[in-house]
Amino acid sequence: MSLFSFFLREPVHVKNPNLFTMEEDILYHFSLGTKTHNLPEMFGDIKFVCVGGSANRMKAFAQFIHQELSLPGNPNDIQDICEGTDRYCMYKVGPVLSISHGMGVPSISIMLHELIKLLHHAQCRDVVLFRLGTSGGVGLPAGTVVITDKAVDYSFQAKFEQVVLGKVITRSTELDEGVSNELLQYSTEIPNLPTVIGNTMCTHDFYEGQGRLDGALCSFSHEEKLEYLRKAYEAGVRNIEMESTVFAAMCRVCGLKAAVICVTLLNRFEGDQITASHDVLVEYQQRPQILVSYFIKKRLGLIA
Amino acid sequence: MSLFSFFLREPVHVKNPNLFTMEEDILYHFSLGTKTHNLPEMFGDIKFVCVGGSANRMKAFAQFIHQELSLPGNPNDIQDICEGTDRYCMYKVGPVLSISHGMGVPSISIMLHELIKLLHHAQCRDVVLFRLGTSGGVGLPAGTVVITDKAVDYSFQAKFEQVVLGKVITRSTELDEGVSNELLQYSTEIPNLPTVIGNTMCTHDFYEGQGRLDGALCSFSHEEKLEYLRKAYEAGVRNIEMESTVFAAMCRVCGLKAAVICVTLLNRFEGDQITASHDVLVEYQQRPQILVSYFIKKRLGLIA
Repeated sequence: MSLFSFFLREPVHVKNPNLFTMEEDILYHFSLGTKTHNLPEMFGDIKFVCVGGSANRMKAFAQFIHQELSLPGNPNDIQDICEGTDRYCMYKVGPVLSISHGMGVPSISIMLHELIKLLHHAQCRDVVLFRLGTSGGVGLPAGTVVITDKAVDYSFQAKFEQVVLGKVITRSTELDEGVSNELLQYSTEIPNLPTVIGNTMCTHDFYEGQGRLDGALCSFSHEEKLEYLRKAYEAGVRNIEMESTVFAAMCRVCGLKAAVICVTLLNRFEGDQITASHDVLVEYQQRPQILVSYFIKKRLGLIA
Repeated sequence: MSLFSFFLREPVHVKNPNLFTMEEDILYHFSLGTKTHNLPEMFGDIKFVCVGGSANRMKAFAQFIHQELSLPGNPNDIQDICEGTDRYCMYKVGPVLSISHGMGVPSISIMLHELIKLLHHAQCRDVVLFRLGTSGGVGLPAGTVVITDKAVDYSFQAKFEQVVLGKVITRSTELDEGVSNELLQYSTEIPNLPTVIGNTMCTHDFYEGQGRLDGALCSFSHEEKLEYLRKAYEAGVRNIEMESTVFAAMCRVCGLKAAVICVTLLNRFEGDQITASHDVLVEYQQRPQILVSYFIKKRLGLIA
């Protein structure tokens, strides 16, 4: 961290005046609250928040970053802070928070509302958020790490539609260019980490919305699928997942620097089913973790 | 089950011709497959599928139905069939399958695609699906069970919008009237189970879309919130949750009889935060389970 950014100390903004007058705020899906927990004490030193869909993966990431930061204690002893609920899991490792968010925009959106409130209540500053995910590749070999340039919707637009009291409003999904470029630079310093920067398409399902031919419902041909993927590729899309637009939109509204880093599990031009072996998939899923860990260690001055 | 419905033996329809020619079908998010598992042997006798958001709750339901059906063995010994993945959990108890689906339309949609394919591959017949959930009540006291008449979207329409290859198509969200009425009748035979039938609004987030004043983002007033809830009430909405429209739409397309039974955790006219104690919430969440268990026992002839 540079001296400049240290003294800037950007606070986490909530965009809701009601929160300043509430006597208590229960973060229901975390099983935490402002009266039952001392949030500034528990979370005040958080600088990096890493989120991902799978609870097991985010636990593994917490254990990995524990080792990477050479923290005292046994990585296997980390405790799920949200053990009072099964909606999400959460681990704190030094200045790093690792949280699972389930699958899809609604699931990550609930988590983000409560996370941003948590960071606000805890008076955190200068926080960077990362989504570490898995995705389908568009014209890329399996195992490629994609750093998201723009998070786009099914029509390849960099926007997120949010319903507020029955009306649809549109939010920008621009991510932090500085963090993305820094990640791309670091990827070249790590061996065996094929990485590109490109647009990420966020869909609301895994089958019909992503043009898969193998769902319970399918009304289109192989050729129509390929045509849609080709159009996506021409629009700069390099991977498809299910959370990036709302993640980008909410972080942006709240002034949080954020990046999306997903590994591709297959090349969608070649198929729909994920057929790689368990061990190969586990290794692929470590790639975003290795890149983000490198970023964190750089920021903390643990790598020159 | 009547003799007539027994001989009718409705199969589970998939609406995808590709599935009949695939050499193997990997149900990735269940960690199951047609080559690695004998699905007809594992699941061929399933008659009732019960789904709900929380993994812990669906495990508790599986243990409960094990006792209710007086099956041999210890209910605590039930095994998660999807233990190879942490995306969903799944328990089989006699003719009953209990599965978690996470939160939101995209998460339950992935599960439903793979569930419907599983029921198809396993050659199941005469299957009834139930979603057992939690919800916010609209003009109802906390703890009321709502059987869904129509699943409606944010504009109170009984439709679900699905994106297919970049185009929006609309599907009907009508549920099975017979099953709903049967459930309503049974609710009158069970003590202390306040139950109504009404429309259920399905939103894509928990905060702004449901008019909550306590999210990280909120741009509307208390009065505007109440006005939206009043309009919802006038349109017949009695509760709000996050999965019913896609559940209804997909079951309908595939010819599956389905019902949605959710308990309300609060009355949204009175507040946004869920403040009831853990024990009270646990008791509320058992209410849809008690009703569906009663239905299953009736169908199996275990209750006269």
